[in-house]
Amino acid sequence: MTQKYADLTPIMYPKSVAIIGATDNTGKIGNIIMRNYIDVGFSGKIFPININSQGSILGFKAYKSVLDVKQNIDLAVIAIPAQAVPAALEECGKAHVKGVVVISAGFAEVGNVDLEKELERVAKKYALPVIGPNCLGVMDLRSRINTLFLPTFKLDKPKIGNISFVSQSGAVGSAVLDEMMHEGFGLARFISYGNAAVIDEVDVLNYLMHDKETKVIVFYIEGVKRGKEFVEVAKKATKIKPVVIIKGGRSDAGMQAAHSHTAALAGGYEAYDAVFRQFGFTAAKDLKDLLNYAKILSGQPLCTGNRVAILTNGGGMGVLATDALADNDLKQAQLTEASQATLRKTMPPIVNIRLPLDVGGDADDKRFGDALDVIEADPGVDALIVVALFQTPGADSRVAEKLIHHATGMKKPMVVICMGGNFTEMHKIMLESSGVPVYSSPSDAASSLAALISYSRYRQ
Amino acid sequence: MTQKYADLTPIMYPKSVAIIGATDNTGKIGNIIMRNYIDVGFSGKIFPININSQGSILGFKAYKSVLDVKQNIDLAVIAIPAQAVPAALEECGKAHVKGVVVISAGFAEVGNVDLEKELERVAKKYALPVIGPNCLGVMDLRSRINTLFLPTFKLDKPKIGNISFVSQSGAVGSAVLDEMMHEGFGLARFISYGNAAVIDEVDVLNYLMHDKETKVIVFYIEGVKRGKEFVEVAKKATKIKPVVIIKGGRSDAGMQAAHSHTAALAGGYEAYDAVFRQFGFTAAKDLKDLLNYAKILSGQPLCTGNRVAILTNGGGMGVLATDALADNDLKQAQLTEASQATLRKTMPPIVNIRLPLDVGGDADDKRFGDALDVIEADPGVDALIVVALFQTPGADSRVAEKLIHHATGMKKPMVVICMGGNFTEMHKIMLESSGVPVYSSPSDAASSLAALISYSRYRQ
Repeated sequence: MTQKYADLTPIMYPKSVAIIGATDNTGKIGNIIMRNYIDVGFSGKIFPININSQGSILGFKAYKSVLDVKQNIDLAVIAIPAQAVPAALEECGKAHVKGVVVISAGFAEVGNVDLEKELERVAKKYALPVIGPNCLGVMDLRSRINTLFLPTFKLDKPKIGNISFVSQSGAVGSAVLDEMMHEGFGLARFISYGNAAVIDEVDVLNYLMHDKETKVIVFYIEGVKRGKEFVEVAKKATKIKPVVIIKGGRSDAGMQAAHSHTAALAGGYEAYDAVFRQFGFTAAKDLKDLLNYAKILSGQPLCTGNRVAILTNGGGMGVLATDALADNDLKQAQLTEASQATLRKTMPPIVNIRLPLDVGGDADDKRFGDALDVIEADPGVDALIVVALFQTPGADSRVAEKLIHHATGMKKPMVVICMGGNFTEMHKIMLESSGVPVYSSPSDAASSLAALISYSRYRQ
Repeated sequence: MTQKYADLTPIMYPKSVAIIGATDNTGKIGNIIMRNYIDVGFSGKIFPININSQGSILGFKAYKSVLDVKQNIDLAVIAIPAQAVPAALEECGKAHVKGVVVISAGFAEVGNVDLEKELERVAKKYALPVIGPNCLGVMDLRSRINTLFLPTFKLDKPKIGNISFVSQSGAVGSAVLDEMMHEGFGLARFISYGNAAVIDEVDVLNYLMHDKETKVIVFYIEGVKRGKEFVEVAKKATKIKPVVIIKGGRSDAGMQAAHSHTAALAGGYEAYDAVFRQFGFTAAKDLKDLLNYAKILSGQPLCTGNRVAILTNGGGMGVLATDALADNDLKQAQLTEASQATLRKTMPPIVNIRLPLDVGGDADDKRFGDALDVIEADPGVDALIVVALFQTPGADSRVAEKLIHHATGMKKPMVVICMGGNFTEMHKIMLESSGVPVYSSPSDAASSLAALISYSRYRQ
């Protein structure tokens, strides 16, 4: 390719898709991908391609080669044995296909370096943007493309939103994606780019940084091939939107494992860590943190101050949340005299007017609301953590509604901590589907708020 | 009391219970407690006590005072206004009640120090073991007692097991208890002891250390009143069974919050931390860790070696798990030549024979089983982490069954990592209900294994 960064648009917004390796045989990858396209209601044209095809596949007219289609093909998805891939790619080039996803494995990751070089050569010859090989490909809920070859019953249903998740590893990709869908994360795009023979993390980052559907970019990488270009793009990207990142292979042993996994030059973590810090990445060391950080960044306003007010209906949880603030270099806010005076009027006498504000196990929506009115408006408070324990006698869905009412449109970030079983889960879903991030432990809430504040300061 | 430690037996195994403050009025604490006793199927006698009672309460013959009962009363649960508690306790003493739980709040925690002293004086006068005041009391699934005044629909259903959970704070207690029940933890006893006017953490620890139903003790404390006695009991307890502990108020700000919460002398965390380290406690800094550690300690064998083998059906997750080992001072195990030779025969050629062993996304139960046969028997492996990603084409319930088959009776600890949505959750339930601990992130799995190893070394 002559341009500096590959353009992913034909892959993301295809009007027509050729599936090379499509088949009627259930269980085969080419069959699963065909069915996924049908299932998601892709509105463009679908051309199943199979060298042995006889007439039709899954009810669609089938072709022996993309060259036989004689119509415009935006995207080709290749799911055939590795050895046959370069020839198929050559045909894509000749047929003026605009973008390709190579699902097939069996390239550099198993030592077939020459085969991967051949793939790369063909892609360059035709200036073809190619994702893969050895990947899950892409999923986009708006343009309804889905090249994943995972049985749909094994994954939860996705919700449209503003988080895009990019994973070098297909396995990490599918597990995290499934967990995101389970947790109700709003998703924009999923990209699993595998061996990165042509399109790599630099291209993907460059594409997503300009993508208006993406508010938060979430990245799993094992190594970066073009370090200089990565830094160049990252510098710009993190000035526009948060990039939450985790690097597999932080330890020496992990690095060796990563090398064996995707044949990536993993490189010392110190270098990555320095880049992450210098250029405003939100770096996670664990997948849970990756998800926690993405959640707060996708919905809450930026905030450079670190004075946090804790409101709780359980004393002990207020204590633990206070400890978690200290662990994350956050400060406990102090209420002004005026705020304290107002609270003395609206709270029952048993409530101790100080932060963390413990409004008691009998607190109902009215009491939560009265407390939030004051805390939200206090100039000494930059951000809020609300502990809402739904096991308590006073807490019910009206409390959740009150929290949603306050969080919506608030200029300060607010996160909620709740922990428990089904009754609590129900309220967690209420809160999160209205954009209020919920965490199930004080340390998750505090570390996520700290990540938001750290990124906000970088952007300042 | 003249004995050094209070005996909780009459509270834990009562044949008869008096509920002081019982009422027909739904929503009142005395009503909820009465109904909980009926709901759990308590097989002993129930005596509702209410000074205004007329005949019966919830179908049980009611009395104006425990003195009117004229039958043996093992346990009295008091849920009346604080000011009336000392007099009611005096009557319990006179009626030869054997143990008391005071649910009522409004004592030292709101500044009524004299009232609490009066309660303590009466308890001592009659050598009455009293839990509370300002607490949730006790729940025991075997003897079917439940003094909790939380609406039952707000909590998940408990499963009988070997974990006992003790919480100074009622709010932390109910949230963690609910989460434990949601996660399918097997529970022995729950004790929320509140202000600890009479029975404190020392008594509870002493009781549970000798309790044959309890295999793991889990503790939330904000402060210890009798430091010397606590250390004395703890020394013995941790030699018998693991004690997983979290102290609220680790930070200065948290300590102040704790003081305001339960009027406990919180004390510097350094002193607590030193005691925890020296005497074999398994200390957590977050509620999630508390649950994670309890889970592995309740079911897996002790293990002093730290050479961990990772088996995975997703390369990237193997990389992240390897990083997590390093973060927790665990070593990656090395397979013997003999093990490698066997694996070369049983694994497909695409599998790289080294740890972490990535058996591929198409791995089925047969391949998992063949790999486990070798790893389990390898003398260089002390413990196992199995990553089972159920999104992959090869993984289904037969894989879960195979993991259960291997984990059952294995002399080495084994934990499983899976992450995802409903399909994954189903398999997680399968695994955990068979005693295989499952974690949803590599760092949770590795830190829990490290906690098990650390405790095993203390016991050695």
